[in-house]
Amino acid sequence: MKLKALESRALRVDDGRMFLLDQTALPGREEWLEVSTTERLVDLIQGLHVRGAPLIGVAAAVFVGLKAARSDSDAATLARDLDILRAARPTAVNLMNAVDRLRVALDEDGARGVSAMAAHLFDEDVALCARMAEAGAGLIEDGDHVLTHCNTGGLATAGVGTALGAILAAHAQGKRVHVWVDETRPLLQGARLTAWELARAGVSYTLICDNMAGTLMSAGRVDRVFVGADRIAINGDFANKVGTYGLAVLCRFHSVPFFVVAPRTTIDFACAHGAEIPIEARAAREVTGFSGSSGAVTWAPAEAQVFNPAFDVTPASLVSAWVLDSGVATKPEQFVREEA
Amino acid sequence: MKLKALESRALRVDDGRMFLLDQTALPGREEWLEVSTTERLVDLIQGLHVRGAPLIGVAAAVFVGLKAARSDSDAATLARDLDILRAARPTAVNLMNAVDRLRVALDEDGARGVSAMAAHLFDEDVALCARMAEAGAGLIEDGDHVLTHCNTGGLATAGVGTALGAILAAHAQGKRVHVWVDETRPLLQGARLTAWELARAGVSYTLICDNMAGTLMSAGRVDRVFVGADRIAINGDFANKVGTYGLAVLCRFHSVPFFVVAPRTTIDFACAHGAEIPIEARAAREVTGFSGSSGAVTWAPAEAQVFNPAFDVTPASLVSAWVLDSGVATKPEQFVREEA
Repeated sequence: MKLKALESRALRVDDGRMFLLDQTALPGREEWLEVSTTERLVDLIQGLHVRGAPLIGVAAAVFVGLKAARSDSDAATLARDLDILRAARPTAVNLMNAVDRLRVALDEDGARGVSAMAAHLFDEDVALCARMAEAGAGLIEDGDHVLTHCNTGGLATAGVGTALGAILAAHAQGKRVHVWVDETRPLLQGARLTAWELARAGVSYTLICDNMAGTLMSAGRVDRVFVGADRIAINGDFANKVGTYGLAVLCRFHSVPFFVVAPRTTIDFACAHGAEIPIEARAAREVTGFSGSSGAVTWAPAEAQVFNPAFDVTPASLVSAWVLDSGVATKPEQFVREEA
Repeated sequence: MKLKALESRALRVDDGRMFLLDQTALPGREEWLEVSTTERLVDLIQGLHVRGAPLIGVAAAVFVGLKAARSDSDAATLARDLDILRAARPTAVNLMNAVDRLRVALDEDGARGVSAMAAHLFDEDVALCARMAEAGAGLIEDGDHVLTHCNTGGLATAGVGTALGAILAAHAQGKRVHVWVDETRPLLQGARLTAWELARAGVSYTLICDNMAGTLMSAGRVDRVFVGADRIAINGDFANKVGTYGLAVLCRFHSVPFFVVAPRTTIDFACAHGAEIPIEARAAREVTGFSGSSGAVTWAPAEAQVFNPAFDVTPASLVSAWVLDSGVATKPEQFVREEA
């Protein structure tokens, strides 16, 4: 059974047990966490120990798929697990898409269908990433300075990633690429995870604070911006890590091309436009300080009121192109619905 | 001698000794540091224990003024002190302006002239702040949501502040004002200092990460933006804390009025335009982690290359008006050169 020996940058199956690389401990420590219960997986998703829109969908699928393969759970239990996981985080649609496909498999083929679909979803994500990376790399020129936000690499997917996958593919093709990594407050996925991935891949990068992107663009030092997405509406509006919208506005003002890279599993064909995407609000303590592998600090007054949306919505009008597994779409009308 | 009993939010003279409130320890601890040598003052300025363009000018003046008043230093020593202090930080022009005025006083009237000028510079900053606050408050309407960057209050000046002074004055006039405080990476002057000042003043505020300003503007939740300045060129371009430029671009895109509040001591009449303003580059460790009163953490890979300019330059074309002690200027031609 294929499902029993899966391995990606941040998800590993070993003898039927699923392990996730604890992304809150990176880059300080590489620590793998075993996931034994559905509730534990929900905690790990909500605590961002596992993150990245495609990866949380795959992780949920693999976990339930393994449970189904052990044949110690009845259909009602698996269905309940799927319901619980589906609601773990509200914005990224990949999780919901994955769960819905598992649910169809459960209804049609029972437990065996679930484990087969889980393996398929993993493989599919790897394949979608490879195709996006190829399409995205084609938009990067030798000598480019590319800015990216949050983390969209092998830590965020089962494959090579979305936006970062495209950058890594351009590097692998021999193009000289320098990456501006914005730190991505509040949870610093850029500073912690993207920097770590780029260093491992031997790609040259410079870390900046989010508020320095405009400074760089005004000096003509950013050739293009690549970001991922957590949900794309059929009109092309999309939700992504908070700060994405501000970057898109800066790109428009400075005539810097702005690309969104995402697999078809990120498109929500039931969502007409961005205003319909629910935005997750997260805890104040993420903004008032920082807690990670090297310790915890608080810098704001304890009683500070905080606004902390995890995502924002960027309108289609600010997007130069959507880089999908089906290729580069310059209009939302080019989004392809059919399966690979 | 007036100089011996000065007191402001972050600078205090007690029996001829100067103390500075350690702004790196706020809001966790309120700790006053005695300044006994010129070298110590330079360290405190460079380490941002004392900060804010107007305040570092006043602190340098008061320190040398006290030394002059003790009459244990000859003119050559005082002149050397002024040279050392003048070069402590390169971007804010207030420090240079203050030192140059002390130098003229030294040349014309000796040590007595220096101490009298130091007392005058302190009083002048208090008066300039009061007039800017009044002018700026007139631009704020009842019910406004005002966004501000970095810290420009009583911690940054000898008086009530510049941009934050205007907001505090509007509140004092009975206008209902809500303040969006952006945290201001990397050194978090917003989260640490502006939040602390607003809480003390009883003004309602919400802390955000810098990259959420666009998110708020797109939702129509920001009525105007007020920032300070470290140097204003005669064409109206100005340098201010990094991130200011990006805010100005967002304001333009969303048609949100963008105001710069600064005293005449911030205008550099020898500077034709923004490209001539030197920008201080600071240490990588400010971006790769955080160190403050509650501890120190590092979150980025140790070997990360970092871009860390302390300031950026915003062109005059993005400024709605310059709020000066002489009133509200809508064109740089209205800048007033004469002394109060």
